[in-house]
Amino acid sequence: MRIKANLILLFWVFSCLFSSLGFAKLASRFPSSAIRAELGRKQSNKLYKAKYFTQILDHFNFNPQSYQIFQHRYLINDTYWGGPKKNSPIFVYTGNEGDIEWFAQNTGFMYDIAPDFQALLVFIEHRFYGKSIPFGGDKDVAYSNATTLGYLTSTQALADYATLIIDLKKNLTAVDAPVVVFGGSYGGMLASWFRLKYPHIAIGALASSAPILNFENITSPYSFTNIITHDFRGESENCYKVIKGCWEKIEKTGKRSGGLELLRKSFGICKNYIDADALEGWLQTAFAYTAMTDYPTPSNFLNPLPAYPVKQMCKAIEDPKTGNDTFAKLYGAANIYYNYSGTATCFNLDDSSDPHGLDMWGWQAPTLNHE
Amino acid sequence: MRIKANLILLFWVFSCLFSSLGFAKLASRFPSSAIRAELGRKQSNKLYKAKYFTQILDHFNFNPQSYQIFQHRYLINDTYWGGPKKNSPIFVYTGNEGDIEWFAQNTGFMYDIAPDFQALLVFIEHRFYGKSIPFGGDKDVAYSNATTLGYLTSTQALADYATLIIDLKKNLTAVDAPVVVFGGSYGGMLASWFRLKYPHIAIGALASSAPILNFENITSPYSFTNIITHDFRGESENCYKVIKGCWEKIEKTGKRSGGLELLRKSFGICKNYIDADALEGWLQTAFAYTAMTDYPTPSNFLNPLPAYPVKQMCKAIEDPKTGNDTFAKLYGAANIYYNYSGTATCFNLDDSSDPHGLDMWGWQAPTLNHE
Repeated sequence: MRIKANLILLFWVFSCLFSSLGFAKLASRFPSSAIRAELGRKQSNKLYKAKYFTQILDHFNFNPQSYQIFQHRYLINDTYWGGPKKNSPIFVYTGNEGDIEWFAQNTGFMYDIAPDFQALLVFIEHRFYGKSIPFGGDKDVAYSNATTLGYLTSTQALADYATLIIDLKKNLTAVDAPVVVFGGSYGGMLASWFRLKYPHIAIGALASSAPILNFENITSPYSFTNIITHDFRGESENCYKVIKGCWEKIEKTGKRSGGLELLRKSFGICKNYIDADALEGWLQTAFAYTAMTDYPTPSNFLNPLPAYPVKQMCKAIEDPKTGNDTFAKLYGAANIYYNYSGTATCFNLDDSSDPHGLDMWGWQAPTLNHE
Repeated sequence: MRIKANLILLFWVFSCLFSSLGFAKLASRFPSSAIRAELGRKQSNKLYKAKYFTQILDHFNFNPQSYQIFQHRYLINDTYWGGPKKNSPIFVYTGNEGDIEWFAQNTGFMYDIAPDFQALLVFIEHRFYGKSIPFGGDKDVAYSNATTLGYLTSTQALADYATLIIDLKKNLTAVDAPVVVFGGSYGGMLASWFRLKYPHIAIGALASSAPILNFENITSPYSFTNIITHDFRGESENCYKVIKGCWEKIEKTGKRSGGLELLRKSFGICKNYIDADALEGWLQTAFAYTAMTDYPTPSNFLNPLPAYPVKQMCKAIEDPKTGNDTFAKLYGAANIYYNYSGTATCFNLDDSSDPHGLDMWGWQAPTLNHE
């Protein structure tokens, strides 16, 4: 069932509020401060222990290459578990497009409820992300072309989870322990699909922020961007108008003699790469990702952000000090997303750092299907 | 989920009632009379029209070879269909290990109930059987080795059915027509698995004679043979004892000087290949297949048979004319299965004819899994 997905998801940016411009350079951009913070947490956390499971490459064929194996990472926390004799449940996070530690560290809900349910917590990494790289763990090989990347599919990932869960339960002599799967975003789609496709393994699924029906011919391709528009417009009509009007301004400026240097100066872009498309992509990312992580408390999922960051962005746009200077307004908004910690000295449009190990999502998202 | 299956199914013969002997030559054996009868029906029937669907080779990966296609056969009968405007149902037979025409011709139940439900009838062939041969329809290539046969899996077959049904409904502008899947034996397993794995495509499944739980560590490996034993023992204790005792007699006779010729004469074996193992396999097939098709009416699914053929076999074994001659008793029983039409002049132990296109079941059955 290779129904082409027009799936718009986390790290998938587009054009409605933003007009239809500059998609080429939409790789994730994270200031190095965020990277360091993340690494620091990883090294000191007691949230889980990392384990590896010998996983099969291809669950659906019996070709010679199907039998290849890889080391599949999962994280486990048995602090709260009531154990197999009590038939205490197992809560499994069905990992999505990134390092599983990142998701484990940002799924506090499972830790919050685990004591009440005496639940075992397990976070399973998605194949081809983090440290769960087929072909000997060598990303250069695994990511090289379709011959290897062809095994990066959601159906294979679901089968990975099924295999791992069954084996883990056996090893824990907890074959009868009820399993509930959890996930957010694409991980939530996986959780719901897992419950559908493996009803004998999971008794329930909790999918959060999961665009399960966001596929071509089911949901409008504009639904995601419409929601982002609504988020900013909900703060004020003027905030929405400033953002909507900025793209033409940026393009015109970019084409003028000396315009790119003006843009560089206006947005504090470092003295390497700049062009109008890249700058627009950088701003689109700020708006879309901030809307996606518009939490009511300070947070650090994609980047460090204040509480209600969309509100804060519109506040920056409407800052009386910026007067009629659209670029100053946008620069203020971009600073909420890219520099809430206040440590950045300039912004790098050519930044290809990927602290959450999301590189392969660009390959995977367009191939997602919903059968 | 490659859990090794100890699946015992149609055309899968073994050793319990039969002691543990001679499995080498258990390919299906059909007298040529049955073959001709079958072909005759095919050419003249008005039960269905054959169509072809361009099917994808690999539904679960995105490797270059996954995109290969093949012509996938299905049979369709719209005589009884109420049409898409009435939302009349579609009854789909999920084809199993053989030519789909054979299953369509032997699933009268669907034809019986179609008028009441105003149902469209569709019979979909299983990949690698009949005329649904990947790799250009060339059996020599498709069956050559694991590189090609690796795509012969039940999960791929289920995905074939899902893809074909969705496309067919679209073409018939019957997207909302409810689908119910039907199947017998392995086809019944497929029907029930289809309902589990594709709950959004099929609203129900009817699985007949489907050993859904007959897998290692779930069901005793002796369950199938125990049932066959029970069938014959249910007729008479003596019938069971004669069968149980015969294997040792055949082996001892085979080892004696002139013994093989005595066996040949006793069982009417043609003057080519004979040995004790092959003869035992031939008898085991007769007992097992007769038990599997022990219908209360005359029938012709595997071979032409009278009503209650197990009863008839035991009657032959207890025929007073055979006195104490065990071989004469068994010969009488074997004649029920191999020569009910009465046209055979001798029996060929070396017969590798395959009128129902079952050749690949020997590859597939041991690889079946139940996730």
